[in-house]
Amino acid sequence: MSVTQPLGFRAAGLAAGIKPSGKPDLCLIARDQPAPGSATPHTAGSAMSFTTNAVVGAPIIIGQRTRAEVLSARQKPVAAIFINAGNSNAATGQQGVLDALACCQALAPLLGITPEEVLPSSTGVIGRPLPVAKMLSAIPTLARQLARGSAADAAAAGAIMTTDLAPKSALARVHINGREITIGAIAKGSGMIAPRLDTSADRPPVPSATMLAFITTDAPIDSTNLQAALDACCQDSFNRISVDNHPSCSDTVAVLSSGQAGGEPIVAGTPAFTQFTAALATLCRDLAEQIVVDGEGATRIFQATVRGAATDDAATRIAREIINSPLVKCAIHGQDPNWGRIVTAGGNAGVRFDPAHASLSIGPVEVYRAGVPVVAALTDPRLKHAMAGKRVEVVMTVGTGPGQAWMLGCDLSKQYVFINAEYTT
Amino acid sequence: MSVTQPLGFRAAGLAAGIKPSGKPDLCLIARDQPAPGSATPHTAGSAMSFTTNAVVGAPIIIGQRTRAEVLSARQKPVAAIFINAGNSNAATGQQGVLDALACCQALAPLLGITPEEVLPSSTGVIGRPLPVAKMLSAIPTLARQLARGSAADAAAAGAIMTTDLAPKSALARVHINGREITIGAIAKGSGMIAPRLDTSADRPPVPSATMLAFITTDAPIDSTNLQAALDACCQDSFNRISVDNHPSCSDTVAVLSSGQAGGEPIVAGTPAFTQFTAALATLCRDLAEQIVVDGEGATRIFQATVRGAATDDAATRIAREIINSPLVKCAIHGQDPNWGRIVTAGGNAGVRFDPAHASLSIGPVEVYRAGVPVVAALTDPRLKHAMAGKRVEVVMTVGTGPGQAWMLGCDLSKQYVFINAEYTT
Repeated sequence: MSVTQPLGFRAAGLAAGIKPSGKPDLCLIARDQPAPGSATPHTAGSAMSFTTNAVVGAPIIIGQRTRAEVLSARQKPVAAIFINAGNSNAATGQQGVLDALACCQALAPLLGITPEEVLPSSTGVIGRPLPVAKMLSAIPTLARQLARGSAADAAAAGAIMTTDLAPKSALARVHINGREITIGAIAKGSGMIAPRLDTSADRPPVPSATMLAFITTDAPIDSTNLQAALDACCQDSFNRISVDNHPSCSDTVAVLSSGQAGGEPIVAGTPAFTQFTAALATLCRDLAEQIVVDGEGATRIFQATVRGAATDDAATRIAREIINSPLVKCAIHGQDPNWGRIVTAGGNAGVRFDPAHASLSIGPVEVYRAGVPVVAALTDPRLKHAMAGKRVEVVMTVGTGPGQAWMLGCDLSKQYVFINAEYTT
Repeated sequence: MSVTQPLGFRAAGLAAGIKPSGKPDLCLIARDQPAPGSATPHTAGSAMSFTTNAVVGAPIIIGQRTRAEVLSARQKPVAAIFINAGNSNAATGQQGVLDALACCQALAPLLGITPEEVLPSSTGVIGRPLPVAKMLSAIPTLARQLARGSAADAAAAGAIMTTDLAPKSALARVHINGREITIGAIAKGSGMIAPRLDTSADRPPVPSATMLAFITTDAPIDSTNLQAALDACCQDSFNRISVDNHPSCSDTVAVLSSGQAGGEPIVAGTPAFTQFTAALATLCRDLAEQIVVDGEGATRIFQATVRGAATDDAATRIAREIINSPLVKCAIHGQDPNWGRIVTAGGNAGVRFDPAHASLSIGPVEVYRAGVPVVAALTDPRLKHAMAGKRVEVVMTVGTGPGQAWMLGCDLSKQYVFINAEYTT
């Protein structure tokens, strides 16, 4: 139960023949349109965040423009998200943009909306022409299959998968102003996962990765406030995970609101907004963790928490080095408490700290304290137990500053190499 | 033939029992001391570069101090380098420094020098106490075994290896001012390789990795000029390689000069200095490439060249993202021309460029031109041939700027995971 649980949404998924495997590869999520001549429309909106890669897929180029138009009220919010797997429509130049727009144009009249209200999204192989003909011929069926319920949710979640072993979805319910608000979501991940979504005002160029997450809610919240909520959530969820530290050209998180739960519009600065954002953040962290758990070849996940840095940003940089080090990832895979790799990975973030004030714990066991090894730790049975878990937690302290942060990664296995040495060709 | 080929140097290597395997693990390289009462001593010097990791081994702490003292002429140049493998003496706090100094103190009188003239260097497991007793008991034998010739060179090169499959050495000869100058070197690498040696004046904190290189020369060059030559060489050799993008706490390059080739001292700003630096740079690049070829689990190497960036630094950042992406490394391993991974890796360097002006070639085949795929490329037999080579070369153009750079990496294999999931414990 996911994207069609909130009131006002339907979804569908089918196989259009984009993937050579013949598995489902086309997904549609659509907000119901008000009946002609109906009373006051609900407060509906859309919000989205995209990869910060300098090379972006055609759908991102379209989506960035759509977001700007929607936030400046020159255009209605996105009403439908049209996703294909198997082809990322990236590094495809102007033709890629035309191909994506052709799909939006074919789909829009079937939903009673304009092409500009359709957000395209693509994931898969890079640099191949989008198989538009296959997609156009599948669009009428896809639109016809739009439905509510668990079968529709499952079809949608399945059709956006690439190397994912499991579909990913989440559901949250929260009471705001006496109304029950539902938030549903589907996501895909697995490879090219290290999202750095553009959530700040200036949207700076930083590393990014392909992760897709599509969220629906019946909360009454317009695009501007929904974007503010999403920006606040991405930084502490999707932007804190990495499978392979390789940013994709297609990372996308999009949220649609229908307003059908009713009640007063939710606006930034109010307790209602805080409640809504908290629920959205929890859901985003849930999705983010599901993505890491199903990271390509992953057998266990590990969280690095860094404390005592000068700033949260410095702590984030240190934590990111730790979870992305291949040596650390292999040690986690081998259940090897080789903590020197963790400490030296942390030392490579371009952040100065004094090892004499640095410490490291693995699970409940402090292995390094104030710059020297805790010799007894290596024979502590709790250390072996902590390393053997499906989720390993390490905490590195680098000083006495107020900055702290966490990042979530996964181990590096032979299976990762197997998957990625034999993909595409 | 390596470090004892230049006039005025001897070397030795033996097994002191530091490595559990019982393999050689103790190495000594020493400059001959002038006979008591001898005439004008030759122009001799020492220079060194160290990791920029925030967490450094005890030998680095000592070496940084030594360098500063030598360059300010408060102390004589380094006359001997004492290296152990099997234990990095890092994350060992003040005791680690005392342990290293104890070794220097035991060794110095045997060589007729002061303890300050001994540069210690360590590589191996992090966070374990240095086995000083074993080292002290081996030191007299080590000093006694100092010799010239290929056996001594081989013993020295073998004793600094860790997970290296092959010993690494290099030799260069250059005629300067009518004199034949010889430069010899040994090195080790294999894992924790992505050196960012401190070569600029302010020695900034940037990521770093364990690579050791020890160079001797009979050129007449003092410490100040030798340091200038080394700084110029490291940036375009060791600092351009990466095996695993994990900076070590122990990276060290050290050069000793004996001056025994005779002739006028070589000073910066002269043609002689330019000639010497060019020869040293070629030797350093040779060593750097040997290290990548023998990177843990590596089956082939690949060079990413980036052109058309605004600055060389921007080009370096893009090239570094390309060679360090696990997805790219796996594609290289699998001989898979999945160039979308290369282009998107390049897009993640935090450097803005317009994909419409970006192109990529793999070997002689352009696969991506001005932002669009070159469709015919994928069936070009030269592409398959280029991917199958032991050295894959990719060139990415990102615009029309003057900035360019290259980085050299290796593929990511299952063997890498095998090696690193089962090291130490």
